[in-house]
Amino acid sequence: MIKLSIIGSGNVAQHLIQAFSKTAEVELVQVFCRRPESIAHLVAIDKTTSDYGKLQPVAVTIISVTDGAISEVSNNIPFKNQLVVHTSGSLSIDALNAKNRKGVFYPLQTFTKSKEVDFKEIPICLEAKNDEDAQTLAILANAISNSVAIISSEQRKALHVAAVFVSNFTNHLYQLGHDICVENKIAFDILKPLIQETAAKILTLSPRDAQTGPAKRNDTQTINTHLNFLSDDNQKEIYKILTKSIIDNGKKL
Amino acid sequence: MIKLSIIGSGNVAQHLIQAFSKTAEVELVQVFCRRPESIAHLVAIDKTTSDYGKLQPVAVTIISVTDGAISEVSNNIPFKNQLVVHTSGSLSIDALNAKNRKGVFYPLQTFTKSKEVDFKEIPICLEAKNDEDAQTLAILANAISNSVAIISSEQRKALHVAAVFVSNFTNHLYQLGHDICVENKIAFDILKPLIQETAAKILTLSPRDAQTGPAKRNDTQTINTHLNFLSDDNQKEIYKILTKSIIDNGKKL
Repeated sequence: MIKLSIIGSGNVAQHLIQAFSKTAEVELVQVFCRRPESIAHLVAIDKTTSDYGKLQPVAVTIISVTDGAISEVSNNIPFKNQLVVHTSGSLSIDALNAKNRKGVFYPLQTFTKSKEVDFKEIPICLEAKNDEDAQTLAILANAISNSVAIISSEQRKALHVAAVFVSNFTNHLYQLGHDICVENKIAFDILKPLIQETAAKILTLSPRDAQTGPAKRNDTQTINTHLNFLSDDNQKEIYKILTKSIIDNGKKL
Repeated sequence: MIKLSIIGSGNVAQHLIQAFSKTAEVELVQVFCRRPESIAHLVAIDKTTSDYGKLQPVAVTIISVTDGAISEVSNNIPFKNQLVVHTSGSLSIDALNAKNRKGVFYPLQTFTKSKEVDFKEIPICLEAKNDEDAQTLAILANAISNSVAIISSEQRKALHVAAVFVSNFTNHLYQLGHDICVENKIAFDILKPLIQETAAKILTLSPRDAQTGPAKRNDTQTINTHLNFLSDDNQKEIYKILTKSIIDNGKKL
């Protein structure tokens, strides 16, 4: 059984605590967070601490805090020569203090506290400085997920940018569609089957083959009708730049 | 049993032919298309015609062709005083020739020829000039879908613009994510669970509550890391404008 501690109590940390609590291969030894009461529903209070001095050396310590705090948190860890990993998509493995062995344990998913996720389907991107640590992380990852990959810091940075496009930006397009519905007294619900099908198509078609719509058809008349319809400058600007990008993309081989 | 004819052989027309062929409430009388052999796999050849003169008056004729051709096709219909509808999201009901009674039958979905869809889940937006025609269209729509709504031409235009945002533009963001993966030798498959979860979240959370990512957190450091990482001007421009839009949106109440 791998002894594990988690530092943090944000979205990712809470989902990891829940996922690891359900596995037999991993023993969750400690959770560090500033306000232990905020995770009292997830972990026994005697396993929590808000005092770095009380953190015990374990096989793996996962730091799951905001990117800006990772370096400092890794400095504050009181022990040495253990495996300490972060969960950031964009930070290099070397953001971690060198007094411990470094690694990355990056679950590629969008986490919201109020919505449970099935960790089995979440790709976990691992990085370590030696094979033994990579194997330890792989055991940990396989305990909660069916999809585990070794990804370098540079590739992970690319993946994180790609994830922003397909998830954060996509959700914002849902927001803009939502706003247009509200402005025109239409229930947003009517768009939900379209949103689901657009995502489902990508499981069997390449994005290029799945592309539809006026920009794909270079249908200038509809595009102009839409631009005339939009009164919000921000919506109009986004409509223009994405339409142009689809048209330009269609010209590539 | 409602007698129905369909004019057209594109994505939407083919999906409608398939859906209506499976229902007991509707009799598909004729399909008009220029090259009947192109839909020989969907409908018996003796039910097809490429000669407007042979089109018979039926309870409902659905014109499912590109927006630019709808007016002309409706002019070419040889009979009068029947119910003739189009399937366009963006065109007014009055794009149709007034010699027949006008209507709209707009299925709000993204159709790709190679991918079957479950019509039961597709919202169908109806418009007619009188209650009787609206009722006829409702029977037709309910024969293939569980989600039927009366939507005016003006609302339908708004809905079509919103659909472009949440579907066409979203798929293009998948394309950009795909391109970033390919450029960095990462399998696009690793992003698919994230894409599915992003769409699934919208079923239970508002887009505002579902928003995550560096722009939502106003995490300037990560945003700059991403902008420095992106070398493609188009990707960079889209990253900037959508990030700004998320940040500005977060400032609204």
